[in-house]
This record gives sequence, structure tokens and C-alpha cells, in this order.
Amino acid sequence: MTTTPHRTAHKIDGKAYAAALRETIATHVAWLKEVHGVTPGLAVLLVGEDPASQVYVRNKGVQTVEVGMNSYEHKLPADVSAADLYALIDRLNADPAVHGILCQFPVPEHLSETEIVARIDPAKDVDGLSVVNAGLLASGQKAMVSCTPLGCLMLLRDHLGSLSGKSAVVIGRSNLVGKPVAQLLLRDSCTVTIAHSRTANLEEVVRGADIVVAAVGRPQMVKGSWLKPGATVIDVGINRIPAPERGAGKNRLVGDVDYDSAAQVAGAISPVPGGVGPMTIACLLANTVTACCRSNGLAEPEGLSV
Amino acid sequence: MTTTPHRTAHKIDGKAYAAALRETIATHVAWLKEVHGVTPGLAVLLVGEDPASQVYVRNKGVQTVEVGMNSYEHKLPADVSAADLYALIDRLNADPAVHGILCQFPVPEHLSETEIVARIDPAKDVDGLSVVNAGLLASGQKAMVSCTPLGCLMLLRDHLGSLSGKSAVVIGRSNLVGKPVAQLLLRDSCTVTIAHSRTANLEEVVRGADIVVAAVGRPQMVKGSWLKPGATVIDVGINRIPAPERGAGKNRLVGDVDYDSAAQVAGAISPVPGGVGPMTIACLLANTVTACCRSNGLAEPEGLSV
Repeated sequence: MTTTPHRTAHKIDGKAYAAALRETIATHVAWLKEVHGVTPGLAVLLVGEDPASQVYVRNKGVQTVEVGMNSYEHKLPADVSAADLYALIDRLNADPAVHGILCQFPVPEHLSETEIVARIDPAKDVDGLSVVNAGLLASGQKAMVSCTPLGCLMLLRDHLGSLSGKSAVVIGRSNLVGKPVAQLLLRDSCTVTIAHSRTANLEEVVRGADIVVAAVGRPQMVKGSWLKPGATVIDVGINRIPAPERGAGKNRLVGDVDYDSAAQVAGAISPVPGGVGPMTIACLLANTVTACCRSNGLAEPEGLSV
Repeated sequence: MTTTPHRTAHKIDGKAYAAALRETIATHVAWLKEVHGVTPGLAVLLVGEDPASQVYVRNKGVQTVEVGMNSYEHKLPADVSAADLYALIDRLNADPAVHGILCQFPVPEHLSETEIVARIDPAKDVDGLSVVNAGLLASGQKAMVSCTPLGCLMLLRDHLGSLSGKSAVVIGRSNLVGKPVAQLLLRDSCTVTIAHSRTANLEEVVRGADIVVAAVGRPQMVKGSWLKPGATVIDVGINRIPAPERGAGKNRLVGDVDYDSAAQVAGAISPVPGGVGPMTIACLLANTVTACCRSNGLAEPEGLSV
């Protein structure tokens, strides 16, 4: 009887990495308190009663407090005026106890997400969504980097060490993920290709890459047969698909990568769930510590920013 | 006797394109004056007496007036204080007759180029150098786009029509050229690869590309043998090399592409000199018209911006 040799990729455990990152953050927070008398503070704004947003905000608040930081939650009615919301943001911008500010999106239609983000002091924009932070990132300066891209970079650096000279393909060109991930990989001296829905020969492009970051929002699109053997794959996608095997009407979460086939070719791959997802809130906390150190003129802790 | 079939690439004539662009600009300027009573105005700041800078500023002024716009030259002594320079920029920011402001670089060492650029109203930053404009470009919003990258894109669109789905390689990752060119090509739906000094297999990367933009500052580095047959090549490099054949101590200008070998493989190539170079001032004028239209709430003329 012959057996087919089966490679099984290393599973990049984002949940474990995020837990370790939170411990590192807690250590830095304790040091900031003891040595400098400063406690990092994160303000989260929630407009309206969207149930999913309430869960996200609650999770952020719990994790913020767990690492020893101050959490300031501001819940506003769904019909809050832009003027009132901006007045609150202005107060938080001016408040030295608040180092990070984020507004949970989506917001009701009468409010503009772009204008809300623009109102937040770029130095406190711990979601890294503002035009100024995009520009700082694009020009290689110190920025607040969006949490999901920062999480991708941390996982890649942790697994690969130096990324210099590696060829990387980012699938997807969103402002939230694809474009900032490409900037971060370029900053780490990868040769970076940005592919997207108009890319003619996607399989071939992916096959040339040492690093593949999939952020396209199409369930299980990237197949194992597309990958260079040994490639490192970061799956940013979170897609809900029907899972009748779990019972009528049941769903399950999958990424943009077909995990089972990819795991037979890749060297390492981040799963969904349990890969990039858990990194997002941890990176939000990391950004808040970074913002706190910068605003107080203190050295930034290593490993929390790029 | 057998002859070797010789392909000769189409020469992308930036000088002719720039001349035509200036005519288009002059038509728009005349229309703005006649129909709206507005004359676009460009303010150029020159600090000190650097001879090369004086030539550049004079050329910009001459071309500005030739297309019918107002040119405001501000010559400041080499020891001007930052405070006095910023006060002038503040006045120009507030002046409704001034639609574009640029400071000729380099400036003396006691001044910061970054701070000067940051002081200019992003809407009047016709050199497109500010962090805000980099961020607007990176996030796909209306920006003032740096003149050289804008010139590259215009030449490519003029030669190829739609760029959608084409594979493009940008060699060089500078903030001034490489990175903004990559953003523009991505916006036009190319599959974009950014290569640089750490790229492992540059020849192979270049050989996969329909479009090659060389902006690396190494004379004649890209050889014809690196190119995909029929590729379109934009050479941004301007390098001075010894030309003893012209006499002892003589120099000549060459690009980052080895023109003679490249012309035998490429479908089209921009020469040096006479390619991208002449586009730069023309794009500065185009940006000033665009800024004038935006500040007056008028529709932007087609073909002057992206």
C-alpha cells in the first residue's frame, strides 16, 4: 500500500498570539502607571442600539479594562445630531486622559462616517481610519495603523521573522485592509503585488508569492492549487456560509481561502475563525498604548506598532 | 543574406504631449476668464539663490504666463526665518487669487521641507507633496496628485487607453514617484507590483509586466532582455553620465532604462530626455487649473486630473 505524502501547514494561531499580545500590553500599562503615573484611556462612541455593535463595544470595553486601561463608553441616541456628536469628539480630543477615540460603525444614515473620522484628532485615531493616518502610512511616517492590517503584519513577522525581499500578494484593494496591508509589507521591504477583481491571471499571480494576504470577501476563493508550496497565507476574510450538516438553517464562518486544500500546500496559514479576527481588538489596545506613549513623549514599547 | 527582424518601439513623445496639454490648459484658462471671471493663479516661493532653482522657477513662471494664468513669484533671502516664510504661506493660503502654492526645493538647512509642505493648504498644494494629499490619494479620494506621477499616468492613458486589468510594475518606492504612481495605477485597475532594491528577482518581475515604470535613479539599469515583448515602458529616471564621445568632461542624460536595447523589445517607451520630464511643469499648470475649479465650485476640466 502506498500513501500520498501529505503536507499539513502550520496553523497560525491568532487567538494565542492575541492573548500573548494582551499580556504584553498589560505589562506596559502597569509600567506606565507605576513609573509615569499615566493610565492609557480608550473612548468608544456608540450611536444607536444596533445589537451587533453593542456586542463589539462591550467586548472592547471588557478587554480594555482587563489589560488595566481606562475604558470610556459613550452611548448616544440613534437620532443624535452631528453637532452634538462632534462636540463630544472635540471634548475627547482635548481630554488628556483619553488617548484613543473610536466611533463604532455603522452609524445612522444622517451621520457621515468620513466626517466623524476626520473630526477625531489623528493622534487619537486608534482605528487608523483618517486621511491623515493613511497619508502618514503611505509616506512612511509614524502613523496610527488600522487594527486588522497591523494584526496581519504582526502575525507575519512572528511567523517569518524578517519579511525583507519576500514576494507578497495582497488580494483586495480596500481602504480598510488591502491597501494598508500593502503599505505595511512594502515598508518591511517585501516586493508587493496588489491584486483585485480586475486581475487577469489571479491564480498565476498568487502562485508567485511567498506571502499571500487574502482580503477580498469571497468565501473560500483561494484554492490550495493556487499556492506556491510553503507559502505563508493570512486569511482576512470572514464569510458566513450555509452549513446544513450542522442542522437546517445553520451557518458557519469561512475565510477567503479554502483552508483544507490550502493547508496541504502552504507552509503556514491563519484559520478562520481564530486567525486574524482575534488580533483586531488586541491591536486596538496596542494602538491606544502607542498613542498614550506618543502623547506623553515616552518611548514606544517595542512590538506594539510598526 | 539574412536580416534579423528588428522591432523598434513607439517613442512616447512627452514633449509633444506636454505641448498639447498646455494648449488644452490655455483653452480652459481662457474659458475660466471669459465665462466665470476667474484667472487661475500660481504662487512660487524661492528661498535663496541656488542657480538651478532659479532656472526652474523662471521656467515655471514663463509657462504659467504663457497659458494665461497669473504667476506670483516670491523670492526670499537665504536666511529668511521660518516664521516669516510661514506668515507668507498663511497669506497665500488666505488669498482667493492664489489657487496653487509651491515652494521650490531644496531650501536652506534651517528650514524644514516637511513643515513647509504641511503649512500649505492641501487644496492649494499643487505639488501634491503633503501628507493629506498622500492620504487622499491612498484612500481613493480627490487629491492633488504630484506632477511627475500624474504625468506618467497621462502618458500611459494616452498610449494605452484603458489600463484596467493590465499588469504593471513600478520599480522604486519613493514617496515622490514610486508610491504615488502605484496608487494611480491601482486606481486605474492595474494589477500593481512595487519592486525596489530588495526585490529578489527583479528581471523576472519586470518580465511579467505589461507596463513598466522605472523610477529608481540607476542609469540604464533596466535592459531590453528584462522586458515582456510589447510592454509599455515609462522611464522616470534622469541620470547624468560621462559622455567622452562628446568631448573631454562632457556628460549626457540617460534614464533608468537602457533605451537602445529596450526599444527592440518594448511596444512603446518614453525617452530621456523628452519623455516624462516635460510633463512635470505641464502637470503643475494642470493642477493649478484643477485647484482653481475646485475652489470656485466649478466642474473640473476633463483630462487634467485623475
